[in-house]
Amino acid sequence: MKNRNFSLSDRQTLEALMLHRRDIRGNNFRHDPVSDECVSKLLQCASLAPSVGFSQPWEFVVIRDAQIKAKIAANFESENNKAAQTFKDEKQRLYQTLKLEGIREAPVNIAVFYTPPTEPVLGQNSMIEVGEYSVVCAIQNMWLMARAMNLGLGWVSILDPESVKETLNAPQENKLVAYLCVGYVKEFFSMPELETLNWKRRKDLSGAVFSDSYPCSS
Amino acid sequence: MKNRNFSLSDRQTLEALMLHRRDIRGNNFRHDPVSDECVSKLLQCASLAPSVGFSQPWEFVVIRDAQIKAKIAANFESENNKAAQTFKDEKQRLYQTLKLEGIREAPVNIAVFYTPPTEPVLGQNSMIEVGEYSVVCAIQNMWLMARAMNLGLGWVSILDPESVKETLNAPQENKLVAYLCVGYVKEFFSMPELETLNWKRRKDLSGAVFSDSYPCSS
Repeated sequence: MKNRNFSLSDRQTLEALMLHRRDIRGNNFRHDPVSDECVSKLLQCASLAPSVGFSQPWEFVVIRDAQIKAKIAANFESENNKAAQTFKDEKQRLYQTLKLEGIREAPVNIAVFYTPPTEPVLGQNSMIEVGEYSVVCAIQNMWLMARAMNLGLGWVSILDPESVKETLNAPQENKLVAYLCVGYVKEFFSMPELETLNWKRRKDLSGAVFSDSYPCSS
Repeated sequence: MKNRNFSLSDRQTLEALMLHRRDIRGNNFRHDPVSDECVSKLLQCASLAPSVGFSQPWEFVVIRDAQIKAKIAANFESENNKAAQTFKDEKQRLYQTLKLEGIREAPVNIAVFYTPPTEPVLGQNSMIEVGEYSVVCAIQNMWLMARAMNLGLGWVSILDPESVKETLNAPQENKLVAYLCVGYVKEFFSMPELETLNWKRRKDLSGAVFSDSYPCSS
């Protein structure tokens, strides 16, 4: 498999996947089952991600059990009530109308953990976070492959991670990096919902790119 | 662009990209120039990544200047000497033979920063790290698009991040997430180098996947 050359058409496929990938929530998941084969494919793609020192510091809990989902959903409700308070007035009212997770609606949930090293890891010394970052690369691989399989994926971050660990009986040393909801969708929206709702605008990329260094502050 | 359906062939393209993606170091970069158009395409793909609350908390410094590269390379040398001491005996000898970066060899370096929020971000309350994680998703998008353009990318993590920030005149509040080297390659190896060298083995994925919860410890 040495030196495979990818074509313009391959690049266009990848760019389309990135462009059409969306964060999917409970108002948009269908209940159709997701096969074990599909879940396995997502996890295989996760395992192809780069990892610092080839440490592959990831573990996955695949959740289909309704009782476990209900516990995680209760965790979300509690954290989301607190989160709503951080927004004021009109923004808080809009926040409270948003559906921000699909824990119960998605047939499959996947909790993704970082397993800290028990011995020195090549490349993980000056910037210790690169272990967790490897797990995030694995998640982005899963997200893109989900889209390629026309499967929706949503990342739920409004969760108390210690409480998720307790619910899932996770080893104390593991760190929850992400809680993902996976299922078929009614529709892949053409724009991110938060963009459509004017919650946040797309940034002008040119303002976020600098040449050789940041400009000198006078 | 609603509801675009991707095909089996699209999935196979994506999987091949993931399978053939490698971390590239200085022993494998060619000096052929990388065009501004290629760099722009990578950054556009970064900006298509998911981000918590659509916060898009990323900034990029594109470095072609030899003097700046030399300062970053000196930072690497110093951190790498310290890192080598964490390994013992045979492992330390092997470590010292490894080429772990391509800062000077790669025509383009890209420093990727996280810009912390100045107001509440939707979804970034219970797990504050999701801001940084959004930046990592952007990096994985760049890495896959680089491979699709038959461009190599290497992630250098053996750097003192505060010193990189000083060299690049970065705002104090920004956090360095990654320092990337980008260029055309002599060869995309068929396996990760650390796997070929028996530094670390590929994990058996089945040992890293659990159903509904981690097993109860007795």
